Amino acid sequence: MANKGISSAVTKRLPRYYRYLTDLKDQGVERISSKELSEKMKVTASQIRQDFSNFGGFGQQGYGYNVEYLYKEIGKILGLDTKRKLVIIGAGNMGQALANYQGFSKRGFILTGIFDISDNVIGTDIGEYKVRALSELEEVIKNNDVKIAVIAVPKQAAQGIADMVCNLGIEGIWNFALVDLKVPSNCVVENVHLVESLMNLAYNISDKEQ
Amino acid sequence: MANKGISSAVTKRLPRYYRYLTDLKDQGVERISSKELSEKMKVTASQIRQDFSNFGGFGQQGYGYNVEYLYKEIGKILGLDTKRKLVIIGAGNMGQALANYQGFSKRGFILTGIFDISDNVIGTDIGEYKVRALSELEEVIKNNDVKIAVIAVPKQAAQGIADMVCNLGIEGIWNFALVDLKVPSNCVVENVHLVESLMNLAYNISDKEQ
Repeated sequence: MANKGISSAVTKRLPRYYRYLTDLKDQGVERISSKELSEKMKVTASQIRQDFSNFGGFGQQGYGYNVEYLYKEIGKILGLDTKRKLVIIGAGNMGQALANYQGFSKRGFILTGIFDISDNVIGTDIGEYKVRALSELEEVIKNNDVKIAVIAVPKQAAQGIADMVCNLGIEGIWNFALVDLKVPSNCVVENVHLVESLMNLAYNISDKEQ
Repeated sequence: MANKGISSAVTKRLPRYYRYLTDLKDQGVERISSKELSEKMKVTASQIRQDFSNFGGFGQQGYGYNVEYLYKEIGKILGLDTKRKLVIIGAGNMGQALANYQGFSKRGFILTGIFDISDNVIGTDIGEYKVRALSELEEVIKNNDVKIAVIAVPKQAAQGIADMVCNLGIEGIWNFALVDLKVPSNCVVENVHLVESLMNLAYNISDKEQ
């Protein structure tokens, strides 16, 4: 895939396309026009055609796109045909919730371990996983070729963990700590700042009330 | 506050400004210039000045902004000087993690109840909260003037819950279910689609590898 140069605004929309195509496929729909898809997704048909044109257009001809084909192609672009291993660091509330979530493995994300520094949680079970000591992280990452680390530790500890995992060859950090991480250029970060999302909601409510 | 007409790109940046100002205030910093703030936040000083000008500029004069004043003003714009009550619907992994999270109350968000339909969890304790039956939701929302509902139920159930809470006077939905909700115009939705965030990270890793 040579997707460089495609704007992140476009690529950020791909998971949502993938979600709608998954539903259509599951409903047995075989073909869909950009107009029908646009009505379902509440975006314009021309945006859909323009987004898809970045990836060669996915061969819409006659009556619309082949759903199965489009689903597979977007899945390939998203790298969902590859199994990706991840580790979770931090076995607090969020780390536990993520470890228990079944939706990741369906998209090819394989949890390879959950780690903590607290003796109170090391050795305890979270679903089918036993929480391991952070000292075992290096071995697990290297032996399993893990590329994604989920950081679910308090914000004071997050940068130290980020430095550590980037050194161990992690290429992507999914960061739940409420801090902006500094990482080397061979590592990418995706933030989930929940409190800021909630503040944004509160702001949008206030703004409507005026 | 008359914030209408300010683009959502600007308002989405406010929680991050607020976070940096909280840290500066906690460190005892009294004044900061837009240049210093820009270096910390890795945005341009002119973007900061432009963003702030939407809210009257916050009186930068001489050597920069007064940190305490700026912190308070942005907090007010975000509505953080008001206590906001919320309920969580769905006591699964995510609902539990959110109920246990201490960071919300610090920003004025008060959890008023967590609800579920499953007899297996109704009556059980999550931190200091007892999970209540969904049939009690109406009473709790009305008696406590709750304005925010957190939807943490399976996606098949989410639209039904959204319809219900909008009817009960909820003004904002924080939606963790992987589905786009249809809501009336007096209700706003903020989505946290975790799987799509993880897919986005995976895509950005693949893209770097080329």
